[in-house]
Amino acid sequence: MAPDNASTTPTGYVQPDIDVRALTEILDGKYGEIRRLVRTNLATYASVLEEADELGIDAFRERVREIVVDMAATGQTGMGFPTVYGGGGDVGASIAAFETLAFGDLSVLVKVGVQFGLFGGAILHLGTERHHDAYLPDLITGELLGCFAMTETGHGSNVQALGTVARYDAAHQEFVVTTHGDQARKDYIGNAARHAEFAVVFAQLEVGGKSEGVHAFVVPVRVGGAPAPGVRIEDDGRKMGLNGVDNGRISFDGVRVPREALLNRFADVSPEGVYESPIENPNRRFFTMLGTLVQGRVSVGGAGINVAKVALAVATKYAVRRRQFATSQAEEQLLLDYGLHQRRLLPLIARTYALHFAQDVVRSQLHDVFSGVEDDERARRGLESRAAGLKALGTWHATRVVQECREACGGAGYLAVNRFAALKADSDVFTTFEGDNHVLLQLVAKGLLTDHASEFEDLDQLGMVRYVTNLAVETVIERASVHKLLERVRDLLPGGDEWDREAGLLDSEYQLAMVRFREEHMLVGVARRIKRGIDQKRDPGAVFSQVQDHVIALARAHVERLVTEAFVEKVRALPEGDEKEALALLCDLFALSTIEADRAWFMEHGRLTVQRSKAISREVNDLCRKVRPLAVDLVDAWGIPSEMLRAPDLVG
Amino acid sequence: MAPDNASTTPTGYVQPDIDVRALTEILDGKYGEIRRLVRTNLATYASVLEEADELGIDAFRERVREIVVDMAATGQTGMGFPTVYGGGGDVGASIAAFETLAFGDLSVLVKVGVQFGLFGGAILHLGTERHHDAYLPDLITGELLGCFAMTETGHGSNVQALGTVARYDAAHQEFVVTTHGDQARKDYIGNAARHAEFAVVFAQLEVGGKSEGVHAFVVPVRVGGAPAPGVRIEDDGRKMGLNGVDNGRISFDGVRVPREALLNRFADVSPEGVYESPIENPNRRFFTMLGTLVQGRVSVGGAGINVAKVALAVATKYAVRRRQFATSQAEEQLLLDYGLHQRRLLPLIARTYALHFAQDVVRSQLHDVFSGVEDDERARRGLESRAAGLKALGTWHATRVVQECREACGGAGYLAVNRFAALKADSDVFTTFEGDNHVLLQLVAKGLLTDHASEFEDLDQLGMVRYVTNLAVETVIERASVHKLLERVRDLLPGGDEWDREAGLLDSEYQLAMVRFREEHMLVGVARRIKRGIDQKRDPGAVFSQVQDHVIALARAHVERLVTEAFVEKVRALPEGDEKEALALLCDLFALSTIEADRAWFMEHGRLTVQRSKAISREVNDLCRKVRPLAVDLVDAWGIPSEMLRAPDLVG
Repeated sequence: MAPDNASTTPTGYVQPDIDVRALTEILDGKYGEIRRLVRTNLATYASVLEEADELGIDAFRERVREIVVDMAATGQTGMGFPTVYGGGGDVGASIAAFETLAFGDLSVLVKVGVQFGLFGGAILHLGTERHHDAYLPDLITGELLGCFAMTETGHGSNVQALGTVARYDAAHQEFVVTTHGDQARKDYIGNAARHAEFAVVFAQLEVGGKSEGVHAFVVPVRVGGAPAPGVRIEDDGRKMGLNGVDNGRISFDGVRVPREALLNRFADVSPEGVYESPIENPNRRFFTMLGTLVQGRVSVGGAGINVAKVALAVATKYAVRRRQFATSQAEEQLLLDYGLHQRRLLPLIARTYALHFAQDVVRSQLHDVFSGVEDDERARRGLESRAAGLKALGTWHATRVVQECREACGGAGYLAVNRFAALKADSDVFTTFEGDNHVLLQLVAKGLLTDHASEFEDLDQLGMVRYVTNLAVETVIERASVHKLLERVRDLLPGGDEWDREAGLLDSEYQLAMVRFREEHMLVGVARRIKRGIDQKRDPGAVFSQVQDHVIALARAHVERLVTEAFVEKVRALPEGDEKEALALLCDLFALSTIEADRAWFMEHGRLTVQRSKAISREVNDLCRKVRPLAVDLVDAWGIPSEMLRAPDLVG
Repeated sequence: MAPDNASTTPTGYVQPDIDVRALTEILDGKYGEIRRLVRTNLATYASVLEEADELGIDAFRERVREIVVDMAATGQTGMGFPTVYGGGGDVGASIAAFETLAFGDLSVLVKVGVQFGLFGGAILHLGTERHHDAYLPDLITGELLGCFAMTETGHGSNVQALGTVARYDAAHQEFVVTTHGDQARKDYIGNAARHAEFAVVFAQLEVGGKSEGVHAFVVPVRVGGAPAPGVRIEDDGRKMGLNGVDNGRISFDGVRVPREALLNRFADVSPEGVYESPIENPNRRFFTMLGTLVQGRVSVGGAGINVAKVALAVATKYAVRRRQFATSQAEEQLLLDYGLHQRRLLPLIARTYALHFAQDVVRSQLHDVFSGVEDDERARRGLESRAAGLKALGTWHATRVVQECREACGGAGYLAVNRFAALKADSDVFTTFEGDNHVLLQLVAKGLLTDHASEFEDLDQLGMVRYVTNLAVETVIERASVHKLLERVRDLLPGGDEWDREAGLLDSEYQLAMVRFREEHMLVGVARRIKRGIDQKRDPGAVFSQVQDHVIALARAHVERLVTEAFVEKVRALPEGDEKEALALLCDLFALSTIEADRAWFMEHGRLTVQRSKAISREVNDLCRKVRPLAVDLVDAWGIPSEMLRAPDLVG
């Protein structure tokens, strides 16, 4: 397709001419079919975007339930379940479907996530055949709705400290589930306030007076539409957004469920009351259970990236329609022809592409682990870390992009008839649910500091500090191997020891070397700081608290390195052509704007001279000007159904 | 009041013990009385926070109108009008009242702003006695509601290009107001959809076939509740937030108003159709008219700062209640004892204090100009620039703070029953209305580049570029006088030429020298870049577009310098005591975290060594630890009525 706007181009540079359909195919990858199905479904139910504004909260909750059940009938939402129960038997496709669904109303998305991802996922991954047979067929059609009761009022991120108790009563071969105090109330639970018949409840298992840690149980919470005996349900009420999802609080007053209600894939209790598990270490058992739920994080991260696409598509289309202020000529200039407006939107488009390709990698790892293609301890740890990191970066990206794009559309962006109101309110909590982003980044850093050691599961924060301390800091340095890295870089890049001064800014090896150097250097730095604090006999908690900002910076640097690698590798693997050229421009824009954003750190650590730092800023500006004429094609290639852009005043 | 949490303190440092009431008095300044009245009114009408969630849009609009009229009866909203018409005759107090009102529901705030600030302000400042007599008495009581019809669908920020026309018909001694095309429709107009009886309409005045530029007219838009003949009103419908304000679109189809409807303080048309104005230059006339509306920007900026206070008060109180994860001991640690959490919240508290004191300065300048204490061309220009800059920084601060605080309160922050949902949705548009922030910062920079030259009013963007070009760049350099600045610094700070390496980080002269240096250097840099582009015979529009990010950076640096000066001067002027000590800590935290945020620039421009840059980051961490025990007192001192914190789950 011809670029929408002729532009003067620097000498020798030939602007790529993007074939939008071809680029969409590159982006859709191997999941084109399921993504097309979801796009069709989104268009079919497009009226939900208006209904979200127009219906009252009760009616909207019912409408969303209806749409979710209808979509389930098309096979869209059941891709992750075994075919024998009516599912699609393709984990990767289930994530791709979820990502694509994020172009539409996010209450529908989150209700799908709660029902099929959280509730269904827990039954599938923590349960055994008896649970699968009992629940999966009706769960997959949406006939049986359930909820995932993990979070409590007093405990969000710290699941090991949950207060709900499930005591085994051997005499009756039942578990007795009890909420101890308001802080142990299950809270913010999607599907709880209205629709769930069953809940997967996470509770401290007590057998014969001994606590065996957190386990999951299937508990009926509603019978004939009313709360089951002993179950108290409150409505969380109106929320900032996602008001089509019925979040609520659940308390249990000695609710009895049969012994078989324990989701017993990783542990069981015999009728006589003997606890047994194939995984001996309780911490490892706990983290193995939690680990099976990693798909939720992969899903939410991917959804965040696609939310960003919707906002950027609206803002970009607006910016090539709207004129503001005259400059040279009498005619006012298009917004996107202003350098500042390019600076605001185009690096965000580049980062969205980068995150998209990074999401491809984590989705594919998830698929391999859960399909048994590559499922060992190390692969699972790598997947969990990548999922946590990408969830954090993807959802923060969504928050930032939605805000920037709303502002870039001015007052028109503020009207509910356009999409920003819903996008902003609905996606806000993405940074919190499925793991608070800051907590997730600490998990990522912990993995790096301990090299995902097998002892990993035993380590709480304090344990981690001790572990890093006991480990000779030299070992970390050796593993991080800044020096080895520098040697590798010297071989790859011209300039030898001066590689960071001599290499071309547009050489992707240079860009990779920079983000790799940053990560390795930060890793060693954090390890040293922790060791120094402990050597000075200071309180380990205080030491960790004090290095916490370095820990977060390390995790960010790690994830940005993974994202950069994913983008660079994707571009390299493409056949020659205009699409490859366009993506290479975007990749440069992403990598250099990422380095630019942290240029203070690179200067502080001797990897960027003042001159080169300024040169990078100039190059980012140049790249923005080159990407400008491609902008509309780049957002069109995301294949967002036009109904989902809504925004009649902005793009119509 | 005793600090809420004992903390280990560095050697020799004695933690100040804040008297919250005394600090509130410092913050309230000379407007304690009116602020107390508003606090009382906020508490009286606290139910509006729930009503915003519970009432439908129609009922909520009526409720907000009712509250506004009730509040008007207490004298709270009329402080800015002459006493002879029933007002309070105190411009500064009117701004202070508005700022304080921002602790509460923001629909009430914006409706007050529309009625008394925009509509009332236009009648007061652009009209003459005949308009004052006719409208002010009923307007001040809220019996007569009106709207301010400036923005059009196609023209937001570029007011000179408005499409609505008011043609003078000498035969009937009437103006004929007509909307030419959809783009000229008045849009997003508060009070238009439901309540306004009159509109102040900005339109291109045509007299005898000649266009005289944009002027304002009082036009009846509604009679007996229905649109007046020839007036078409549409409802903008639901918005992201502020749904208690009835925004709408207005079109005029040859609506006739008498000759006296022209707000004729700065220009008039005689019965025979002769146009006359005491200000000859049309551009200067236009900007003089607009300049009288500067109080809107001062008001919105101040409101943004107070919105930030509400969010920070909730998040801070939550962070000293909520525990998360065990570290050293069995007990989980308070959120605010984590280094990262301190880093997230405390510099934002410091910046909020800084902006508060900067707001004191601009409010006081506004008061002086509009009370005739100091009202010359230069004072007005300075006020307009400062108001524009502080509006941009204050409202962006609100957006950023609300988001960070919501995330810092996790899932609980997402429930509508807490305040973040409303704060986020309602305050979002603050960055856009009363002037898009990016456009405002360009105005600020334009003033700096032209030294608010008297030709200022003639300069559109292109004109400005030419002006800067024609002006020998040396003149700008001379004026900006980086060298003179450096000489002054040398005298003030130890270390002579090495001042930037030798001065203490906590020396406020050092901090001031840094932000002053940055501004002056950026000013010279932008001037040079523009001149270079023009010397190369490039298109001025393209040149300006290319330096636009430098222009914005310059304006930000300028405003941050003003804010730093305001804070430093405030602290210096205080009597010795614990409050002064506490504010001095906060001032250091603000100044150093501001320098830290832009440390890449300081390194790039030779004013920060790598070592010193790292030392600043360490110092910011140290300051956070010192401010931590004072945090609750610092947010309590803002005097937010407890009903306004709502958030029962977070602070209750």
